[in-house]
Amino acid sequence: MSIGPYVLTEKEFVNRYDLTYPFEERGLQFGDGVYEVIRVYRGNLYLIEEHVERLYRSAAAIHLQVPYEKEEMYKQLKQLLHLNDFTTDGKVYLQLTRGSAPRDHVFPVGVQPNLYAYVAPLSRKHSLMKNGVATITQKDVRWDYCYIKSLNLLPNVMAKQAAKEQGCFEAILHRNGKVTECSSSNVYVVKDGAIYTHPAEKNILHGCVRMRVEAFAKETGIPFHEEAFHLEDIQYADELFLSSSTAEVMPIIEVDGNTIANGRPGQVTMQLQQAYEADANIPMSDSIFYVQ
Amino acid sequence: MSIGPYVLTEKEFVNRYDLTYPFEERGLQFGDGVYEVIRVYRGNLYLIEEHVERLYRSAAAIHLQVPYEKEEMYKQLKQLLHLNDFTTDGKVYLQLTRGSAPRDHVFPVGVQPNLYAYVAPLSRKHSLMKNGVATITQKDVRWDYCYIKSLNLLPNVMAKQAAKEQGCFEAILHRNGKVTECSSSNVYVVKDGAIYTHPAEKNILHGCVRMRVEAFAKETGIPFHEEAFHLEDIQYADELFLSSSTAEVMPIIEVDGNTIANGRPGQVTMQLQQAYEADANIPMSDSIFYVQ
Repeated sequence: MSIGPYVLTEKEFVNRYDLTYPFEERGLQFGDGVYEVIRVYRGNLYLIEEHVERLYRSAAAIHLQVPYEKEEMYKQLKQLLHLNDFTTDGKVYLQLTRGSAPRDHVFPVGVQPNLYAYVAPLSRKHSLMKNGVATITQKDVRWDYCYIKSLNLLPNVMAKQAAKEQGCFEAILHRNGKVTECSSSNVYVVKDGAIYTHPAEKNILHGCVRMRVEAFAKETGIPFHEEAFHLEDIQYADELFLSSSTAEVMPIIEVDGNTIANGRPGQVTMQLQQAYEADANIPMSDSIFYVQ
Repeated sequence: MSIGPYVLTEKEFVNRYDLTYPFEERGLQFGDGVYEVIRVYRGNLYLIEEHVERLYRSAAAIHLQVPYEKEEMYKQLKQLLHLNDFTTDGKVYLQLTRGSAPRDHVFPVGVQPNLYAYVAPLSRKHSLMKNGVATITQKDVRWDYCYIKSLNLLPNVMAKQAAKEQGCFEAILHRNGKVTECSSSNVYVVKDGAIYTHPAEKNILHGCVRMRVEAFAKETGIPFHEEAFHLEDIQYADELFLSSSTAEVMPIIEVDGNTIANGRPGQVTMQLQQAYEADANIPMSDSIFYVQ
């Protein structure tokens, strides 16, 4: 994965090799910042407004000011792709911290936030989306405000690593048996034709793709319930899937070594995958239903 | 506050201005690391073994390897003070992250951890320790594993900032009314001559000064109970105090605008302050009981 040479900062575009940070940076010492990952298809930013809106919400929640107005942010992100001559599939990673300042828990006075955004190639996970992925379950040990997309990601890192070490794609997190989300994606169960997922409360991320999944369901007449399911519901699930900007709509076919239903992606999941491809303007030549 | 010119890294000592990090650093993007703050009195590291032990425990908890053996770490930290010709009062800040690598939640393979440690001057807070500080109370919204001294400090930052904005020194955190600790210190209540504080479980930091406070209490025959107290116990407290490497043993005289007891540091707190000064070899000329 190679990052494009031009990186957007709070002031200007710089060469990626020229952008370094001092060791007293609030992101580096406190995780005092927020971020976004925006998907790019054929050089176009997907759900850019949803992501930028959430960036502003996350920043506001920690009393941090985004150095660009929303309209200017759209323009700068498009310019990022343009300058890097980026016309393929990828992702934009953007983060905003409270800036560089001598270490002290309280907010530094008169210090400008640090922002950077880069673009990097990212291929669609055709095979996984077609065949589904295996997952593990883990206790959700994160803080109470996971709706803030903050840089405090250590519990997410640990959960994802645990999944990887067991040969799995993701870790499904739960609080006392109640499923919240995954380490970097939202999760859903399908039972008797209806979708169930944890309500968009303060303790889960309000995923941009999650919002679209809800819209797709409503457009196609699939009942969508913001109602948390429990670990013990999983064994009786007709389908299970997760969603995120990098995983799109991803079928889950195994949880803790147990097969879900018949071990193949279900009808509802596939309907949502199709709706996603239509929404993101994925050409048929790149559709997971056609690519071998 | 001026950081000494020589900074210790995982490999060598470097000039502070030469030490920068790329934007893809695991501390910066995930808070994927741990840290320590070690107090220095007259050029001597206080409780160095306790801090280094905890660093290893924190690192092990997130499957991170410290690049120095313990004995070598002591030597390097002493060398840090020596190189910087540091003979006054200060603190060493040390952090260790999972290194610089392309962004991905899972641990990078074959990447060396980044470590840095610097020394900076820090004066004792004579006046505050003599007169006591005001605090606020806040819900503890942090993750479940606060015994790991990790770089995921956003909730601590937010709590400390809230305290500051209300003219206070610290925020006392509680889970459903049960007091855990403060945003960057441990907290204790004194009632009928006995000390009560939250047990050293996974959800609070096992403070190095807290360990000493327990020892001082035992040596002086003050009953020390690892038994959490509740918000409603505060109004009936005879004394309240907090402890940390930078705040030492600090009397609390106000909580949410309400005065504790007679509004002056209590007998037990002062006894512990004296024990602290003796333990840290503070000369009488610098004692809070003598300095005006």
